[in-house]
Amino acid sequence: MALKIEAFGILNIPIVEKGSDIPGIICRAIDEQGISLEEGDIIVVTEKIISKAEGRVVRLADVSPSSKAEDLAKKTGKDPRLVELILGESNEILRVGENLIITETKGGFVCANAGIDQSNIREGCAKLLPEDPDRSASVIRNALEEWYNIKGIGVVIADSFGRAFRNGSVGIAIGASGIKALWDRRGERDIYGRRLMVTRVAVADMLASTASLLMGEAGEKVAVVVIKGLDFRGEGTAADLLRCRSEDVFR
Amino acid sequence: MALKIEAFGILNIPIVEKGSDIPGIICRAIDEQGISLEEGDIIVVTEKIISKAEGRVVRLADVSPSSKAEDLAKKTGKDPRLVELILGESNEILRVGENLIITETKGGFVCANAGIDQSNIREGCAKLLPEDPDRSASVIRNALEEWYNIKGIGVVIADSFGRAFRNGSVGIAIGASGIKALWDRRGERDIYGRRLMVTRVAVADMLASTASLLMGEAGEKVAVVVIKGLDFRGEGTAADLLRCRSEDVFR
Repeated sequence: MALKIEAFGILNIPIVEKGSDIPGIICRAIDEQGISLEEGDIIVVTEKIISKAEGRVVRLADVSPSSKAEDLAKKTGKDPRLVELILGESNEILRVGENLIITETKGGFVCANAGIDQSNIREGCAKLLPEDPDRSASVIRNALEEWYNIKGIGVVIADSFGRAFRNGSVGIAIGASGIKALWDRRGERDIYGRRLMVTRVAVADMLASTASLLMGEAGEKVAVVVIKGLDFRGEGTAADLLRCRSEDVFR
Repeated sequence: MALKIEAFGILNIPIVEKGSDIPGIICRAIDEQGISLEEGDIIVVTEKIISKAEGRVVRLADVSPSSKAEDLAKKTGKDPRLVELILGESNEILRVGENLIITETKGGFVCANAGIDQSNIREGCAKLLPEDPDRSASVIRNALEEWYNIKGIGVVIADSFGRAFRNGSVGIAIGASGIKALWDRRGERDIYGRRLMVTRVAVADMLASTASLLMGEAGEKVAVVVIKGLDFRGEGTAADLLRCRSEDVFR
């Protein structure tokens, strides 16, 4: 028998608003689709519904841009109010160009616009990343483990990021709980008994990419994906995937 | 009914040598596992078996390092013969450090060691990337479509690359045929009727990551993965995923 992964896109997630009970929404939607969760199953949740439930949607009309934001808006051609939000969410600006601002966010992610998104929210608004996505993942995991009365459920909070050197966005993990987010294989040996050259595997990012194939970007038709058939149980977080500055040759 | 992806890890691929008939090996292995291919199915193949079949395994004892390779070997602590191979496979050196050489390969990939691998091959050897992985993917696709007498099979050649800013390797596509490798969604609208901000999606890379979750790195236990349930039929190649130098802010 072949090894097999199954990934189920959960279709019936309602539109989420500030204060929505995300764990409850996820459990009911999974149940409604007749999927039963087992130990080792992994739930990937788009950050979009987490951010919305956490009230991270900001009206641009309520933002007063600083002079720094006004300057950067002129350089990039972006809305100064959006730039103000980007600056407020960032530790450091890495690259600036025509319609381009790449920063390190307060959470340590290197991405465009500090992860702030204007798709799939009301006109005139912008959506910030969840405040602490590893914590959000942990809250969802605990709720799911209680609801189903099992241990060993993994949760990944996924977003879509661009990359250096390559075109197109991919799903990456901004939050994780209950999985080996970064699988450390140092010391393992290959089929000829030699030590592996690749020793750390970004499992949580690949889970996010798998789910993103089902999620798409248009609308929130699939906001949650259940992945079965893998066993990456562990205690990693998405913060494990952030390369520390001293090891980073591309800043 | 939930949307569903299934990914099958094909277990019974024999050890591949120079000249092995890769399309034939893949078809027989898929058939032996009782999997029937349909239009839209995607086959992900690890570059390891492609490179080996193409005779891209080099004995280090046969390599004479140039003085440039000797210098770079001293700086990085790498074997001068390996460095010679890296230089021969590269257009440009991007970053150098302790045990680190990142280049742009002749095929345009930005990665460590020009993609040269010393795992899962004989002691004293090094394995170069396939010469033209998009062509390799196309050859496999044509053979599979003929074997199964159907159109619309997608093929991805996958490798594991590290990334800027993030720890751990992920599966990425170095070759593709018969799929929208880079899915262009410009002009589509979100649930509120606004244009999408993220407009190009690296589908082939996410397919490679999905397969890599099953492949692992140790040995070639799973060298081929069949993915069912998605429809990304199209005529893209992995070259579509290479960001052109003029748009690259991280060189």
